[in-house]
Amino acid sequence: MTLIGKAVVAQGGGPTAVINQSLVGIIEEAKRHPEITRVYGAIRGVEGIVNEDLVDLTQETTRNLNDVAMTPSSALLSTRVRPDKAYCREIFKVLKAHEIRYFFYIGGNDSSDTVRIVNEYAEVEGYALRAIHVPKTIDNDLLGNDHTPGYGSAARFVMQAFSGINLDMKALGGIYVGIIMGRHAGFLTASASAARKFPGDGPHLIYLPERHFDMETFLADVKRVYDRLGRCVIAVSEGIVDAEGVAIVTKHMKSLELDAHGNVNISGNGALGNLLAETIKAKLNIKRVRADTFGYIQRCFLGNVSDVDQEEAREVGEKAVQFAVRQGKSGSVCIERIGNYAVQYTILPIQEVAGLTQTMPDKFINVQGNDVTSEFREYIMPLLGTDIPKTAVIRAPKVAKIIHKEK
Amino acid sequence: MTLIGKAVVAQGGGPTAVINQSLVGIIEEAKRHPEITRVYGAIRGVEGIVNEDLVDLTQETTRNLNDVAMTPSSALLSTRVRPDKAYCREIFKVLKAHEIRYFFYIGGNDSSDTVRIVNEYAEVEGYALRAIHVPKTIDNDLLGNDHTPGYGSAARFVMQAFSGINLDMKALGGIYVGIIMGRHAGFLTASASAARKFPGDGPHLIYLPERHFDMETFLADVKRVYDRLGRCVIAVSEGIVDAEGVAIVTKHMKSLELDAHGNVNISGNGALGNLLAETIKAKLNIKRVRADTFGYIQRCFLGNVSDVDQEEAREVGEKAVQFAVRQGKSGSVCIERIGNYAVQYTILPIQEVAGLTQTMPDKFINVQGNDVTSEFREYIMPLLGTDIPKTAVIRAPKVAKIIHKEK
Repeated sequence: MTLIGKAVVAQGGGPTAVINQSLVGIIEEAKRHPEITRVYGAIRGVEGIVNEDLVDLTQETTRNLNDVAMTPSSALLSTRVRPDKAYCREIFKVLKAHEIRYFFYIGGNDSSDTVRIVNEYAEVEGYALRAIHVPKTIDNDLLGNDHTPGYGSAARFVMQAFSGINLDMKALGGIYVGIIMGRHAGFLTASASAARKFPGDGPHLIYLPERHFDMETFLADVKRVYDRLGRCVIAVSEGIVDAEGVAIVTKHMKSLELDAHGNVNISGNGALGNLLAETIKAKLNIKRVRADTFGYIQRCFLGNVSDVDQEEAREVGEKAVQFAVRQGKSGSVCIERIGNYAVQYTILPIQEVAGLTQTMPDKFINVQGNDVTSEFREYIMPLLGTDIPKTAVIRAPKVAKIIHKEK
Repeated sequence: MTLIGKAVVAQGGGPTAVINQSLVGIIEEAKRHPEITRVYGAIRGVEGIVNEDLVDLTQETTRNLNDVAMTPSSALLSTRVRPDKAYCREIFKVLKAHEIRYFFYIGGNDSSDTVRIVNEYAEVEGYALRAIHVPKTIDNDLLGNDHTPGYGSAARFVMQAFSGINLDMKALGGIYVGIIMGRHAGFLTASASAARKFPGDGPHLIYLPERHFDMETFLADVKRVYDRLGRCVIAVSEGIVDAEGVAIVTKHMKSLELDAHGNVNISGNGALGNLLAETIKAKLNIKRVRADTFGYIQRCFLGNVSDVDQEEAREVGEKAVQFAVRQGKSGSVCIERIGNYAVQYTILPIQEVAGLTQTMPDKFINVQGNDVTSEFREYIMPLLGTDIPKTAVIRAPKVAKIIHKEK
């Protein structure tokens, strides 16, 4: 079972605030195993392998690795390339030339599929390779995981933003719409619910891609909250769809931009927020309506991470190496929740994770489809970190009126 | 000079992350002066005075006040009302009925003008009142101040966001446009420059309302950076104007139909970001172009403040009470920088601050008008706080190529 050779580590897809914790977890753990003779980093994911754009990560200082671990976004840069057979041939030329026997790929759904493809190619070729997918995604949509590294920190950002927005809107009134990332899974949008502390706190409404979005129902929901509180704070997933499954934003967009995988790009502009804000203004005749699209700010904001997320991201990296070397396995490292709150790590066959999407289970969404349940709150709270900033309200007693005496 | 009576404190205008530090500074300091017999809080700024919507802040616990101080956004809620003579009459009815002799108003330009109006009315009426304006604004545009409480924390948010964006865009490439608040003053937009650490770090271009914005020059700037780096990170003030002083967003709204609905409003939405992103896509033929409007997230994000800002916001509150009681003054509390880095507090006649706008001095803006100077960097750095999160890059040596041998 002993397989001796070099390891290559790479990062794919969108960045997170803790993706480099996993990178450093892999590097540090790999250095503890003599089976791994050297740890290379490939620059820009699989592109770096094909181009032989490799760096020797065993020639890094401990201090710098620790600082890199605290730095958001892929330190080895990233790619959206998903290899086909011809691309795999190029990958394996390089793996063989450098005697690489361990492949660690930190990424989301697309990256897990890359690991599957590489793994299958290795079997066909008869090349002994341990290929491990190390999970990361702010979307929290990887199958087989209770949650994914990167989600907790992005969720914490969303929660802290909505805590501020709540207080802002309480002070000045009106309607606020915040558009959150998450194309198919509403986990990140749902995390806004963690901002609720005092009665009347928002978000008062939450719309997820797991439920059909209907504009008339939405307007009625908003009006009901606004009439009661004089304000309404709303969290909306960028990926909300109508009854036919068509993304609300694409219905109103001028031109569609396709990404490398043929997905329509729905991030990186304010179209959905503008659409909802304008509709509220026009139909409900409310003057102060604000819409923000959280966009790229939410996924690798510097210096505001969940410590729980950070620690787990480090551990999935360590476990990836242990599974590969000590157990001789390939596959996808997964996080399993075993207590309140405690986790353990398992490795699943890559086919059970690769390219599949986990969405919010029904138990996390309310019947009306415009909010989350308390079960979701139980799920999310430990992921946000142990040092959640406090908020407080003035509780001073009212002064008796002299001029405008109460009757 | 001794003036005995109650004090009323209120908050006006947009919120900041540290506005309640000033509130609590006022309350705690007022309790130390027997001249102030009670400290009332008016709910929703001057509206709370007129409506006698008052709470007794001397009946608050220390713990809760400390927690309120750490909470963003006006704890006493806010207003956009600026009193006229009739409104002042109503204010003074209440001040007299409750024997209020001290008026502390925490706010920006409009609130300072309210203090001026109230002050003038008191003189005309011959009613002994000390009216003090306590500064706050994320825009940093109050005259007479080196900087204003609230700015440092908002600037820190913008800096941390751009640090993350830098890393994100480095990993995936393309163009990023971040739209920052500040209609007339570019200070907050300029703070994005503090995100630069390593060579090649952005923002590579910064556009401020103090300089005329020309679309052709902008596109040429962007192209130059993109051709060199394969990415370009841009910070743009929401208030940029053309040579005629017309806001870019309104100007292009008429000619360019950005939103499929054609009913886009110019504030509290992503219109300017979309306009710039669409223009870059169309004219420079670059595919990955992303625009985020920082909007309301940047001004009272929970739990990520500058400690320097926090401490100064507390001190301006304390000093307001000391100036009013110990020196018998009315006016506007100002922050003066007396060292690198040290401040002291002065009180200016309200007329020298009220309703006036400070913009970025020429020495802070480069000749081309698309960046800040190193003098600005010296100015901003101490305001961001003492514990700036670190970033690091991989510095591992390249691995010699075997297949694609260098010639």
